[in-house]
Amino acid sequence: MKSEKISEAVVRRLPVYLRYLNDLNKREVATVSSQELGLKLDLNPAQIRKDLAYFGDFGRKGIGYDVSYLIEKIRHILNLDQQINAVLVGAGNLGQALSNYNYYLRENIKIVAVFDENPKKIGKRINTLTVQPMEEMTDTIKKHNIRIGIITVPAVEAQNVADQLIGAGIEAILNFAPTILKAPANIRIHAADFTTDLLSLAYYLDNGKEGSTDDGEQDNE
Amino acid sequence: MKSEKISEAVVRRLPVYLRYLNDLNKREVATVSSQELGLKLDLNPAQIRKDLAYFGDFGRKGIGYDVSYLIEKIRHILNLDQQINAVLVGAGNLGQALSNYNYYLRENIKIVAVFDENPKKIGKRINTLTVQPMEEMTDTIKKHNIRIGIITVPAVEAQNVADQLIGAGIEAILNFAPTILKAPANIRIHAADFTTDLLSLAYYLDNGKEGSTDDGEQDNE
Repeated sequence: MKSEKISEAVVRRLPVYLRYLNDLNKREVATVSSQELGLKLDLNPAQIRKDLAYFGDFGRKGIGYDVSYLIEKIRHILNLDQQINAVLVGAGNLGQALSNYNYYLRENIKIVAVFDENPKKIGKRINTLTVQPMEEMTDTIKKHNIRIGIITVPAVEAQNVADQLIGAGIEAILNFAPTILKAPANIRIHAADFTTDLLSLAYYLDNGKEGSTDDGEQDNE
Repeated sequence: MKSEKISEAVVRRLPVYLRYLNDLNKREVATVSSQELGLKLDLNPAQIRKDLAYFGDFGRKGIGYDVSYLIEKIRHILNLDQQINAVLVGAGNLGQALSNYNYYLRENIKIVAVFDENPKKIGKRINTLTVQPMEEMTDTIKKHNIRIGIITVPAVEAQNVADQLIGAGIEAILNFAPTILKAPANIRIHAADFTTDLLSLAYYLDNGKEGSTDDGEQDNE
């Protein structure tokens, strides 16, 4: 399954499906159709069926998808049937918000250490974590088999932090700093940028006004 | 131009192009090819050419795209050639981080007010803004022609906040709360969720290991 090339767009939609399926599961809903998923997630049902067909024949005609079976499959596809340790660098407001978020994360990715270079922040408690100095980062990453790095430092420091994370053996980086990072091709980098969400939202402002009566349902790919 | 249906996937890539083009512009780079853009942004050059062709014939064969012309066009497409006022609800760590981010945002979306229901947070200064009580929200939105709402409250409060924002005349919402919001079809809602980025990153962890030698370039749509 994993050997097939799957586009990043599909991979990025899987957590969105997973989140809603988890909600359904919590409400003890047993099955869901691609129509219902499409309505809730503002996506085309045909797109959803196509996405899920990449990974196998999950749906049953006239019944829909078995919620807990689909959750299990998506979690497996996303490697979430194992615990994945992550480290966060930069304990400012955003870093603290993300570390706190740990508690809400039902999935198996866990922030197990937080680092900062600011002496005022080192030693500070964020939930169960204590902010550690940068000097301890490489050892901590190796010791706890940490595979993902989350960067929440200012843009000017981000490349230096990325280099240190990669040097310590990190395989993938989630970058919140508003800058483009250089990395070897085998290191996966996702840019997490709230401005992207916000700026793309602006596109729909005037659009909605021009054709709001006949354009009620948003047209997604 | 705006009457043509453009998929959300394309709209969501435009701010990514814009950010990199702004970087090039700052470094006084005058032209850029779709190959260079693709390499930097980890996207297929053909995809980039196709995306930009939606909006007009910007590129010149053998020369590439004029950076400042393309910036101007994308900004126009995204409605960023006018100031768009936004309001943020929820002055926790994440809300504070996003409000601070205001300062780095070169584009025309501006957070002009922050609200919270917690008496301990009301009156607190975040850069140039002062956290206001929820009771003042509707008046402030109308008075300052605020069109976008950003929700950074806990999940259980998010729907209530969304209803209040929509009631006050907000046209679009960026929702950071880990819950799916109900809204009329003419209100655009984008879910901003760092777990989506993080969980989709996990997909590439084991994949990268299986085929890392012949799979150096990530395969994006």
